[in-house]
Amino acid sequence: MQTPSNENTRLSDTPRASTSTSTSTSAESEPAAGSPKEIIRHHVGARLSESAVYGGVVYLAGMVPESGETDIQGQTRDVLAQIDRHLQEAGSDKTRLLRVEIFLANIADIGAMNVVWDQWVSAGNAPPRATVEAKLANPAYKIEVVATAAVKA
Amino acid sequence: MQTPSNENTRLSDTPRASTSTSTSTSAESEPAAGSPKEIIRHHVGARLSESAVYGGVVYLAGMVPESGETDIQGQTRDVLAQIDRHLQEAGSDKTRLLRVEIFLANIADIGAMNVVWDQWVSAGNAPPRATVEAKLANPAYKIEVVATAAVKA
Amino acid sequence: MQTPSNENTRLSDTPRASTSTSTSTSAESEPAAGSPKEIIRHHVGARLSESAVYGGVVYLAGMVPESGETDIQGQTRDVLAQIDRHLQEAGSDKTRLLRVEIFLANIADIGAMNVVWDQWVSAGNAPPRATVEAKLANPAYKIEVVATAAVKA
Repeated sequence: MQTPSNENTRLSDTPRASTSTSTSTSAESEPAAGSPKEIIRHHVGARLSESAVYGGVVYLAGMVPESGETDIQGQTRDVLAQIDRHLQEAGSDKTRLLRVEIFLANIADIGAMNVVWDQWVSAGNAPPRATVEAKLANPAYKIEVVATAAVKA
Repeated sequence: MQTPSNENTRLSDTPRASTSTSTSTSAESEPAAGSPKEIIRHHVGARLSESAVYGGVVYLAGMVPESGETDIQGQTRDVLAQIDRHLQEAGSDKTRLLRVEIFLANIADIGAMNVVWDQWVSAGNAPPRATVEAKLANPAYKIEVVATAAVKA
Repeated sequence: MQTPSNENTRLSDTPRASTSTSTSTSAESEPAAGSPKEIIRHHVGARLSESAVYGGVVYLAGMVPESGETDIQGQTRDVLAQIDRHLQEAGSDKTRLLRVEIFLANIADIGAMNVVWDQWVSAGNAPPRATVEAKLANPAYKIEVVATAAVKA
């Protein structure tokens, strides 16, 4: 997808390799296992990073379509695949989602989006979810998804 | 309220009894008290669950009106009562709210909504809050509320 | 900025001094260092508080412009300065942001907003971010920002 110069052209902002991480360590504290005091960031750009991990929780950036997919189902698949990748990178996966907030440019797309969502979601581990309509940063975007997850135990 | 077939007809998606929970246990870790490694989900459906508890924090789904209430104050009371129920079920209550995000279909309803909110909120424990306008999944919905809380100590 | 009587006239709701905090202590539990069981709230009003700290995480209220700034860049500076102040008060700072959600009354303002954001954000510590359009509680507001951060280690 050709994207304008806005926040969502994330990777072009990124001054580091896509696997780079940034860790703020703390000299004076001893992080307990599973409850580290440092923040681990992934894909840190000048404007934003794709994820931050702290206290066993992964906070993802709002994910928008990266491919040229133009229909809601293609864009939803694109965005959910990004979430899978970013969760994996952060030591989590879709079975560990704590909440998902979905912004649709057109709320009438919710039914078509749900078809893709229902195929993707982990049976028995469906997360709390909220879906509202909001105009997105690029007129070509039909969906943006903000996910929060727990790291693997 | 008659709801269309969208995410908000949550309980009809639910393959389990409404009191069911789902726990992802971890064989290899010893959860510290108050900081468990497992995620506890409530009202787990095929599409979403109503809450997830992890690391002492309760993440609720976006709550929308379930009753036939059609005015903003009735819908607000409905949604806040649901939050009370779901927080209780998750081992929390409204004195432990960490943040509440309110989506109003018409931001002009904020004053009327606040009247109900102000009666409901726990004195001395009012949470950080954000309120914005967003079109919701069902045209009959005037309010959706996303709440995050701490479990009881 | 002259604000109508809505949630965003926060400080006029506040029954305590602006430096007041509210702590729900727990007699029966011994909070582990860095993982306290009590919730610390700042600027607790009858309707909302400006921040809540729990489990090492700071949850800020949606920040809206307080000054008479009327353009998007002035309002963005205003809001980011408030975030700095509230994070400091809560024992954090902008290097510790875990996620930032930005609501713009007009998504076309994203470019101008980003200019101010890019100057403000901590190099190497840019947080996960999401930006969508939403009508805000006061027609004069062009931006509202919801931030989550980790306390300092």
